[in-house]
Amino acid sequence: MKTLIKDVTILTMVPDATPFQGDILIEGSRIKQIGDQIQESADEVLYGNGMVAMPGLINAHQHSPMSLLKGFSDDLKLMEWLEKKMLPAEAQMTPEDIYWGAKLSMAEMIKSGTTAFADMYIHMSEIASAVKEVGMRASLTRGLVFMEDDGGKRLAEAMDLIEKWHGTADGRITTMFGPHAPYTCPPDPLKEVIQLAENMAIPIHIHLAETREEMAKMAERYHQTPTAYLVNQGLFDACHVLLAHGVHVTQRDMELLQGMRGGVSHNPVSNLKLACGIAPVFEMMNLGITVGLGTDGSGSATTLDMFEEIKAATWLQKLNQNDPSVLPADQTLRMATLEGAKLLRIEHQVGTLEVGKQADIILIDMNKPHLQPIHHIEALLAYSVNGADVHTTIVNGKILMRNRVLVTIDEEELIEQVKTRAKRIVAGV
Amino acid sequence: MKTLIKDVTILTMVPDATPFQGDILIEGSRIKQIGDQIQESADEVLYGNGMVAMPGLINAHQHSPMSLLKGFSDDLKLMEWLEKKMLPAEAQMTPEDIYWGAKLSMAEMIKSGTTAFADMYIHMSEIASAVKEVGMRASLTRGLVFMEDDGGKRLAEAMDLIEKWHGTADGRITTMFGPHAPYTCPPDPLKEVIQLAENMAIPIHIHLAETREEMAKMAERYHQTPTAYLVNQGLFDACHVLLAHGVHVTQRDMELLQGMRGGVSHNPVSNLKLACGIAPVFEMMNLGITVGLGTDGSGSATTLDMFEEIKAATWLQKLNQNDPSVLPADQTLRMATLEGAKLLRIEHQVGTLEVGKQADIILIDMNKPHLQPIHHIEALLAYSVNGADVHTTIVNGKILMRNRVLVTIDEEELIEQVKTRAKRIVAGV
Repeated sequence: MKTLIKDVTILTMVPDATPFQGDILIEGSRIKQIGDQIQESADEVLYGNGMVAMPGLINAHQHSPMSLLKGFSDDLKLMEWLEKKMLPAEAQMTPEDIYWGAKLSMAEMIKSGTTAFADMYIHMSEIASAVKEVGMRASLTRGLVFMEDDGGKRLAEAMDLIEKWHGTADGRITTMFGPHAPYTCPPDPLKEVIQLAENMAIPIHIHLAETREEMAKMAERYHQTPTAYLVNQGLFDACHVLLAHGVHVTQRDMELLQGMRGGVSHNPVSNLKLACGIAPVFEMMNLGITVGLGTDGSGSATTLDMFEEIKAATWLQKLNQNDPSVLPADQTLRMATLEGAKLLRIEHQVGTLEVGKQADIILIDMNKPHLQPIHHIEALLAYSVNGADVHTTIVNGKILMRNRVLVTIDEEELIEQVKTRAKRIVAGV
Repeated sequence: MKTLIKDVTILTMVPDATPFQGDILIEGSRIKQIGDQIQESADEVLYGNGMVAMPGLINAHQHSPMSLLKGFSDDLKLMEWLEKKMLPAEAQMTPEDIYWGAKLSMAEMIKSGTTAFADMYIHMSEIASAVKEVGMRASLTRGLVFMEDDGGKRLAEAMDLIEKWHGTADGRITTMFGPHAPYTCPPDPLKEVIQLAENMAIPIHIHLAETREEMAKMAERYHQTPTAYLVNQGLFDACHVLLAHGVHVTQRDMELLQGMRGGVSHNPVSNLKLACGIAPVFEMMNLGITVGLGTDGSGSATTLDMFEEIKAATWLQKLNQNDPSVLPADQTLRMATLEGAKLLRIEHQVGTLEVGKQADIILIDMNKPHLQPIHHIEALLAYSVNGADVHTTIVNGKILMRNRVLVTIDEEELIEQVKTRAKRIVAGV
């Protein structure tokens, strides 16, 4: 199967590359050629006139089934949000709900240009089935909380996920271990997970320093910051780590993280909506820590549009540094693509448009009043585009959305399913 | 001419009203009836199934022709942005460019659900002509800077705008006086404008306390805050005032503003992008000061999508107050509608959906993955909708966009015009 994208503005996101006009040839799941006027017959030709081709966006932190609860609990205090709304609603969710919630998130992600995501939740085999079927790329993690019991059942499920799904769906699915957060994982079980992850060479996905409450809890319990706690358990010596949030990290914490494998998923919209604070992204980057972008679950962010995260990320760092030149457009676009790929440990496969890489490509239609005139493409992509400007989404060489129409998801059926399920779930709260 | 909107979810934005299902009958420019199953023949019937009808959004601070410069100067320090990019580029703009730039902004605004805007620029008769032709509602202001000369020519143009255009275009066009800012208007000419405004009962639109540089300048020059300076010139005793920005207002300043006629246009995206700071919106509202939302010119904000401002406004106040319950969805939606109408002094005409008011209505299509399921409509409107979800835009009873297609603007011609003009303008910089 060959697909040829003709006469498109190509933004490879390879560092220091500038946009240029050309063609992209996809063969099977990979980019075969990028160049000027490629003369090769293809099974499908996409005319890219007036469009930009760039790497698909990578959402580095998600809880996809929470899409069923979006808009259910906004504008509440954090503990009220969690205890009165999210937890009781989640308790009503069946494995089938998880499947449909994940699918709803995937529909939203594909329609707003996201091609890969890192997901942490429960009933992960339901999500894996949905990912396989829909055609996205995902790093899947079974969340592990060890506070009420030894977490044995959950750890068994995590092992099961990794054994059954890692590397499947033509390599689109990878997995991580998911000790939930420093404050929900005491030293012994956490060390056990770290040991397993090291032995199996599987990365770890963990929440870190999201809220002031977490800081207080960790100070009281261990007299340490959450970051220092993780360092002291040996996490960063052993593993590639995807840290979600990193809002409350001190200068000393950041120095401890310097040189880590993996990095931080910055989730500015969720951090703002829950009033958590501003992560010191600029400082982390200056120390060489990889920072990508994520939405967090749509139960808090209420959107999975990564273009919102791109905007919010640059706004917050400009504000924090009192300097409008901080985190310029090309850098936030890189956070949403190549840096995200590094966090998911798939940067050898995706994150840039390069010959030999997997074809995870989005086409953005610039032929609209709010995207004209074009003085600087990266600025328009970072500050003016929103998810609805994505015209075509391709993952692993396969078209998942063509001219805004989903190919692998029946949108009507999906909406019927989620309406009914959401109603039932919140009726029980 | 009668238009009937059938079976739509109606969000009137009347304080304390909740959304309900019903029909809206428009006769001429006004809302004739809102109710259940209206049985009346109409020239056009719009089927609102799966849609929300709400008042059109009101952009309370704009410089519409700057759309030609969007993306031209992002990620620069403030003075570099202004002196090396904006001012030289603006110097290249002809009256015809102003006309097309305003039209480009109007195309973007109509397509993202804005029905009225407050505009401050030069060559205002060009903008007025464009507004008349396109069908939007606007409050137009000739910006007045008095630093290099006595501003006589500019003041004459302001008088001309008011005399020729105030109340025209079926009442859609109103005008204000526009002394540019405290730091560009010395006491004598400012007092002259205030006197004129009072005598003619015309409001004043002025920038206030946008940057730290302005604070320093005013402290050095007058040993006062910009706000105190305006108070001392008698501005608020005499006039209805639309203050743009109000980022750097002290507690004392806010107390001085208490009881003012008019209020503040909060422009969070521009303030963030230029790293100006966070306006104390929560505190101002607590003092009873009216706060609406604006985008500022797209030369800085790089977007005119008011749904971005709604999101940014609530995020920033939640962050500033360390409290996610601050500025809940219904309140930010009200800022973008009724409160904005108050700032433009048109709240008796628009800002809510009520019988007898002018029909400025938008229909938002909720039948999409990112807007389903619906637990709480206001939350989805505030946090999940973006401009592209607006399906239909009606101003003064006339449809300006139907199913995403502009009615009064030839989009293809517009884009050709702005491409050519923008190229010429920046070639001269």
